[in-house]
Amino acid sequence: MTHQETIVALATPSGAGAIAVIRISGDEAITIASQIFHSVSKKKLAEQKTHTVHLGHIKEGSRVIDEVLATIFKNPNSYTGEDVVEFSCHGSSFIQQEIIQLCLRKGARMATAGEFTLRAFLNGKMDLSQAEAVADLISSDSEASHQLAIQQMRGGFSSEIKRLREELLNFASLIELELDFAEEDVEFANRDDFQKLISKITLVLKRLIDSFATGNVLKNGIPVAIVGEPNVGKSTLLNALLNEERAIVSDIAGTTRDTIEDEINIGGISFRFIDTAGIRETTDTIEGLGIKKTFEKIEQAQVVIYLFNAEEIDEKAIEKFNIEIAKIKNKYPQKKLVVIANKIDRLSESEISKLKSKITNLLTISAKNGEGVEELKTTLLNFVNTGALRNNETIVTNTRHYDALLKALEEINKVQEGIDAGLSGDLMAIDIRQALFHFGEITGEITNDDLLGNIFANFCIGK
Amino acid sequence: MTHQETIVALATPSGAGAIAVIRISGDEAITIASQIFHSVSKKKLAEQKTHTVHLGHIKEGSRVIDEVLATIFKNPNSYTGEDVVEFSCHGSSFIQQEIIQLCLRKGARMATAGEFTLRAFLNGKMDLSQAEAVADLISSDSEASHQLAIQQMRGGFSSEIKRLREELLNFASLIELELDFAEEDVEFANRDDFQKLISKITLVLKRLIDSFATGNVLKNGIPVAIVGEPNVGKSTLLNALLNEERAIVSDIAGTTRDTIEDEINIGGISFRFIDTAGIRETTDTIEGLGIKKTFEKIEQAQVVIYLFNAEEIDEKAIEKFNIEIAKIKNKYPQKKLVVIANKIDRLSESEISKLKSKITNLLTISAKNGEGVEELKTTLLNFVNTGALRNNETIVTNTRHYDALLKALEEINKVQEGIDAGLSGDLMAIDIRQALFHFGEITGEITNDDLLGNIFANFCIGK
Repeated sequence: MTHQETIVALATPSGAGAIAVIRISGDEAITIASQIFHSVSKKKLAEQKTHTVHLGHIKEGSRVIDEVLATIFKNPNSYTGEDVVEFSCHGSSFIQQEIIQLCLRKGARMATAGEFTLRAFLNGKMDLSQAEAVADLISSDSEASHQLAIQQMRGGFSSEIKRLREELLNFASLIELELDFAEEDVEFANRDDFQKLISKITLVLKRLIDSFATGNVLKNGIPVAIVGEPNVGKSTLLNALLNEERAIVSDIAGTTRDTIEDEINIGGISFRFIDTAGIRETTDTIEGLGIKKTFEKIEQAQVVIYLFNAEEIDEKAIEKFNIEIAKIKNKYPQKKLVVIANKIDRLSESEISKLKSKITNLLTISAKNGEGVEELKTTLLNFVNTGALRNNETIVTNTRHYDALLKALEEINKVQEGIDAGLSGDLMAIDIRQALFHFGEITGEITNDDLLGNIFANFCIGK
Repeated sequence: MTHQETIVALATPSGAGAIAVIRISGDEAITIASQIFHSVSKKKLAEQKTHTVHLGHIKEGSRVIDEVLATIFKNPNSYTGEDVVEFSCHGSSFIQQEIIQLCLRKGARMATAGEFTLRAFLNGKMDLSQAEAVADLISSDSEASHQLAIQQMRGGFSSEIKRLREELLNFASLIELELDFAEEDVEFANRDDFQKLISKITLVLKRLIDSFATGNVLKNGIPVAIVGEPNVGKSTLLNALLNEERAIVSDIAGTTRDTIEDEINIGGISFRFIDTAGIRETTDTIEGLGIKKTFEKIEQAQVVIYLFNAEEIDEKAIEKFNIEIAKIKNKYPQKKLVVIANKIDRLSESEISKLKSKITNLLTISAKNGEGVEELKTTLLNFVNTGALRNNETIVTNTRHYDALLKALEEINKVQEGIDAGLSGDLMAIDIRQALFHFGEITGEITNDDLLGNIFANFCIGK
């Protein structure tokens, strides 16, 4: 079996840092580590207890490569369920490479993406949906996506699926048992109870399937398009929204502005501003030449912010805006639209009131001094159904699970039709088995190499 | 004392990765960690042995932030010499921030750059030159710079300095003792032995001071300027030199091409190609308009590669090249010059021979098919005195140490002059004390806040 080879990889982000962690897992992990690690106390690594840390040197012959801490985890009490040694070394890229190459020369091979977690799954340390949650957890960048991932990793989702699967499996067995006694026309499976279970499963599946829309938004963020003429204050608005968050982020080294510029975290939910760079330079308005580009932008968004400069406004402009707003509403009735007049710091109270009377549901803000920005945040947050998150409901975030749930529902619907039509047990049994198959796909009871390959290819190396 | 506060920082490189390590150090480290870490086995962290690892969850109230491993190190058996807890968490930036902020709310403060190592120094876990070597080790990117840093970190340099300092201190005490008996005209310090010691110290200091030139080159790499007309094959040459190294590097994720493009590792020594981007586009030749720019480039280099295209060569061009080469040699007699004819794959054997007869010490290569590239590498390596490195001699790499050694030598020279002039002990004692002072500066026996501030400001946060 492939997964018996001993694998090695850098587990911490690449690049220089205070420390780096190199992880070795497999039958030979301790043997390989012992050949290159020399404990300061002369103790043998293999004789040490699991979950203990030892100071020593990594040496190649007499050449000292680094002073490191070696942590030993003995199977099955490790992440992968195999023997694991982790070296915590000085975080120079050169040292990382030297140690990894030394491990390779001693018989380990480079781990492929996600191979540690794959082994954890294969060794029964977690089910497949939990393994998938590990990758989600690592890439989580907002409170919402983080909470969903950790809930899934801790088995919230799979335990619900497993419970349904077991109940259904139970009935399937009874129904299949009836087949053995077909000539005697017995019913081991109580049809009333069976109908109740199918109804329950249908309900749960529908709820889970419905939760995907929310889950997807919470996990990946809500795409927002800002449209409007140049110099109406789009980038000031983004900065105003970003402000608070950035102050926190900049306390911790290395969170660069680049990565958060287009993604703004409001109340733990990620809002992705589409093509922000483009928006900042764009000269397209609904009526202008860029109409196609604007519509493309709106096409991708769930929320549209229509921004204009409150001080450059007259009757004619208002009329034009109202026409444009009507057009957007007409073309995209499903999209949430927020109409905002910016730069109200330059307007008097009466001018603002007048403006509000002319455009319905107008939000007036000053991105510059922050007036109205909180109101905008509340408006944006209200578009998201965070209730499920607050109530700790199971939310589906993974497209693969969503697909499997849809297929399971399809089969369950067939079973329901079978019940309604008074179908015989042997025919229903096939549909039940199909539904069970799709449940099993989610948790990994049913799997194949292609599927595993696809899932773990999206992991980073070292996890 | 400031260093009694409990500090926290991310110890691994920033960004997402499989795992990240958050380090907490100080009197309250275990108390703070215990408030947020909940062991799966319900064991109390404070009751655990040093150097043990525990699986559990980081929680804020009932909200689970992550499943982590907590490693406990009890003072004085830790990096800093204080109580230390390290959390190995999932490597999401969001999770890293959440855990660090949770620690801050529980009473830790963000560690400043190098503060963990500063505490290690202040708590006597290492001397100052060893602490400085930690930063060198992390930034080491070649075998040579790595070997120098690890030698220094393991105390090779400071033990030599400390030995000299002790011997000198011994004599200083004896000579100072004589002062107490000044009226009796005794000599506790044997003047012959003292002369021997001063001679020995002078020799060692001179050797260490001399080693700085080599050490600096080995640590920081050798600056190389490539001059030549456009399209003579500079970038192909760089790629040919880089080739082997890159293949190794690309095996390990994250070592991007950008960072090594201008720095090529040959036989463990770093060669820095000055302003490579510029070179690749430059149109300057010695005789052309860019003469000033070319000289500037040579000015910064220790090695100059003069590259031309072998196939575009005639008597006139050779004459021109020979004049240019003579000019460079004349203006920069100290610089190592390598004259290279590239693209010899397009020449016949006899053409190559003819070329070699016309230009002395000519290296002929084909950067394209690799011919002669090994010879060039050998030539470049021969410019470096790697003997000291091979013989494991103490090599000075740090400018601060170099300065202190120069000052110490100055004082020792004064002592020598004193001996030669038959100066009285009380006068010599002052110079000896000064020399001792400069020795102590290196290892940190003599120090002050400004100096420490300067040294540790260059560290990364988390170390």
